[in-house]
Amino acid sequence: MKTFVLHGDFVSAPEPGRLETVRGGYMALENGVIQGLFPVLPERYRGLPVADYSGKLILQSFADMHLHAPQYPMLGLGMDLQLLEWLHAYAFPNEAKFRDPDYARLEYARLSRDLIRAGTTRAVMFSSLHTDATLILMEELEKAGITGYVGKVNMDRNATPGYQETTEESVSETIRFIEESARFRKVRPIITPRFTPSCSDRLMEELGRIAKEYGLYVQSHLSENLQEIEWVRELHPDCSEYWETYDKYGLFGDHTVMVHCIWSSERERRAMREHNVLAVHCPDSNVNVCSGLFPVIRMLDEGTWVALGSDIAGGADYHMNRVMTGAIRTSKARRIQSGWKDRFLQVTEAYYLGTTAGATYFGAGKGFSAGDRLHAIVVDESSFPENGNLSLQERLERAVYLMDEKNIAAVFSDGEQVVGSSV
Amino acid sequence: MKTFVLHGDFVSAPEPGRLETVRGGYMALENGVIQGLFPVLPERYRGLPVADYSGKLILQSFADMHLHAPQYPMLGLGMDLQLLEWLHAYAFPNEAKFRDPDYARLEYARLSRDLIRAGTTRAVMFSSLHTDATLILMEELEKAGITGYVGKVNMDRNATPGYQETTEESVSETIRFIEESARFRKVRPIITPRFTPSCSDRLMEELGRIAKEYGLYVQSHLSENLQEIEWVRELHPDCSEYWETYDKYGLFGDHTVMVHCIWSSERERRAMREHNVLAVHCPDSNVNVCSGLFPVIRMLDEGTWVALGSDIAGGADYHMNRVMTGAIRTSKARRIQSGWKDRFLQVTEAYYLGTTAGATYFGAGKGFSAGDRLHAIVVDESSFPENGNLSLQERLERAVYLMDEKNIAAVFSDGEQVVGSSV
Repeated sequence: MKTFVLHGDFVSAPEPGRLETVRGGYMALENGVIQGLFPVLPERYRGLPVADYSGKLILQSFADMHLHAPQYPMLGLGMDLQLLEWLHAYAFPNEAKFRDPDYARLEYARLSRDLIRAGTTRAVMFSSLHTDATLILMEELEKAGITGYVGKVNMDRNATPGYQETTEESVSETIRFIEESARFRKVRPIITPRFTPSCSDRLMEELGRIAKEYGLYVQSHLSENLQEIEWVRELHPDCSEYWETYDKYGLFGDHTVMVHCIWSSERERRAMREHNVLAVHCPDSNVNVCSGLFPVIRMLDEGTWVALGSDIAGGADYHMNRVMTGAIRTSKARRIQSGWKDRFLQVTEAYYLGTTAGATYFGAGKGFSAGDRLHAIVVDESSFPENGNLSLQERLERAVYLMDEKNIAAVFSDGEQVVGSSV
Repeated sequence: MKTFVLHGDFVSAPEPGRLETVRGGYMALENGVIQGLFPVLPERYRGLPVADYSGKLILQSFADMHLHAPQYPMLGLGMDLQLLEWLHAYAFPNEAKFRDPDYARLEYARLSRDLIRAGTTRAVMFSSLHTDATLILMEELEKAGITGYVGKVNMDRNATPGYQETTEESVSETIRFIEESARFRKVRPIITPRFTPSCSDRLMEELGRIAKEYGLYVQSHLSENLQEIEWVRELHPDCSEYWETYDKYGLFGDHTVMVHCIWSSERERRAMREHNVLAVHCPDSNVNVCSGLFPVIRMLDEGTWVALGSDIAGGADYHMNRVMTGAIRTSKARRIQSGWKDRFLQVTEAYYLGTTAGATYFGAGKGFSAGDRLHAIVVDESSFPENGNLSLQERLERAVYLMDEKNIAAVFSDGEQVVGSSV
């Protein structure tokens, strides 16, 4: 059923801090595309079947703008280490296992199922070095109903024995990955140098060329950790700031996804704005591996494009509503640190960051926009404590703090229902 | 079944940072009391029935050393406010509803069920001002299998119209509460001045007298928020520090529960150690209402007695494993703040704080001690990502980060199985 009316209590965030709420509203859909959201169903849609979620909250689904799919098996492990040790002790050895396609199939089917059940319908992610496993990941994501971008990771230096490519392999496998992934409709390739320390200058140059030739977006890490930044400075004495090590090779342009950006200077942040780069804030991961406290309020106030990522498995939680509360908590820790001078992230802003801010990366409009294919979740609040007479904003807040998959009664992705039985 | 053998993979924390692990171990129980934990079942226990949880993790159950039961209906609400505004906008009006015993019954039955399913078998909590609702709370906790201490709250000033007592009412209702609660076996009364600003000097004096007369422990709040501390200073110009406003009335002695203690000075912390006072760290709440970042490492290193609390509903989560990870995150935020000088709380330490540190308040030994009535949970890891060959410590870590009620296959409290079907 793709042409129907969705009925329930709608809450969307077209702008940071501004909600659009319709209690008992009707959303008309034609072939999965939103026609409009109405307090009373217009005459012309009265013949359509109704997916009746009366009294239930209908929210925008989540966009997880950064995660490492092959780190999913190590979720909640290795949290007593810092970034660079953690990479060598946990991340690389775990990712290396994805050379086995059967293992990749098992893990990626499960990851895709977990993500979609938790309400994540859009995602941008890193795979491992392995082209075959990456294609399996894309297939499993499509099957589960997740749309997004997946990158085969490039890494020709500073990795670990048995989990590193030569420059030539990295280039030829990237091209194979791009060409073979042409068969997917909802999941697209993205160019993915792991981070500057992992890629030789020659590889970076080739990746810039490939991105341009195939017209692909780019994702990588930026300014996560002070040791890492120092290392990049040593590797690129010609660049005064980290972002320039990407920009130099054409890997810092429109829709480039730069993950973390905790320590980005004013100049680096300005470069992000000028290039229309997306900064992805991963609050859980940033604290888990002790990288730092992302200045989300400053970024928003300056007008930098920020969205959220779970960063599985530096982050130990793929539930994007908890990533939102993590972002709020980080901003509150910064508020405390500032002597209560800095303001903190409001729940409505966090909801915007976990939904619209990421959705627009995919070309969607703001909130529930007419003309967009439907991405939404239906929240079943029955497991929450009894509390009558809440406003829609309070119900949103409570859902953001308390929900998990057991509260997600239905998920609509790209205009189709992918979780829950059709009503 | 109370005399039996429990079989599975045991992990306990007898000391902060030290685990005791027995893979495929056997715990012998006689009438609910631990006889010992063995790698091989001794001859003398071979005739007993076996609760066979082979391959499953058996952990200590949790002790939640601070929560406000009547704030449970507002879980996940009002998180955009700071402590004192939050009390007036959310906490007091919500607590006032518990004058209705039917409402109290409904909410407290649900709270008790949620706590026990999440593995909390021991708790110390605030009720509301209402004696009847407090007795209902105690009844529902016992029914669910939770042991602990519950306090009718005292508050004869600075509250809100319709939710405040006279000094006389507060005293006479406290005595009624104590006397009527004599019928409970597993849940005991505790003297509960809300906090210094809520209690007149005369009430504090009376409460000190009652605590002494009935031989009861005391719980209250201490040094949570800088404005609050300033207010206490104005109310008690005779006391140089907050703790002295309790001590002065005999309300700061052995086993007094002092909640928060974020801003306690060296002298206040020394007083806690000298009086054998328990400091309860509520990491989620502290950040939610922007109170501050508790110095857990300093407290532990100094030898102050610290345990954890969910602080429902300043805290938005009653899952004590998430309260543990919250404590870790707070300590990591402090590490970042210190320029990576301060160390952070290890997972094994957080597990100790959420289990043994609270259990000893109830007279239990450390970890799984022979002679203690069994308090334990059985963790079903099947919903976690596939990941072979983990050590018991890694499985503990993963459980602490990922589990919730769906992973808790069984709960044993005070020697009896209270969740899960008997094996």
